[in-house]
Amino acid sequence: MAKFTDVHRGMKGITADELTAAHRADLAIQADEKVQFERAWADPASGEVHCLSEAPSAGAVRRIHERAGHPADEIHPVPLMV
Amino acid sequence: MAKFTDVHRGMKGITADELTAAHRADLAIQADEKVQFERAWADPASGEVHCLSEAPSAGAVRRIHERAGHPADEIHPVPLMV
Repeated sequence: MAKFTDVHRGMKGITADELTAAHRADLAIQADEKVQFERAWADPASGEVHCLSEAPSAGAVRRIHERAGHPADEIHPVPLMV
Repeated sequence: MAKFTDVHRGMKGITADELTAAHRADLAIQADEKVQFERAWADPASGEVHCLSEAPSAGAVRRIHERAGHPADEIHPVPLMV
């Protein structure tokens, strides 16, 4: 298992309720790929959403986000953390 | 106070010790600008480092990172969080 951050673009105007609903859609199916989404941060002005997860691979993160209806534009492994 | 994420590029090969030292350099002076750096994640392969902070402004985050010797390439406000 490793840590990943991912970025979604084009979410301008996203609301707190929409962010919560999107995160819950991930949580509902994440066990299928042994992914654990931990946090998500959004900027409605720029339309960027960033997520932090623990997962077996970037592909597992990508598949869960795709199936939940919000494919990621970037997925980065982040093996170091403080 | 608001949440911010920021990105540093060009840190290929960064080690755990270097990430810790960089984070401590921020912590040592962050009170000057009422910034609180919470977490940082790094990918030595891509050379990207992402930080999460709470601060009065993006400018405050920018100034602390500059004074600590590692200016940020991007700073994003993230008013929504789950």
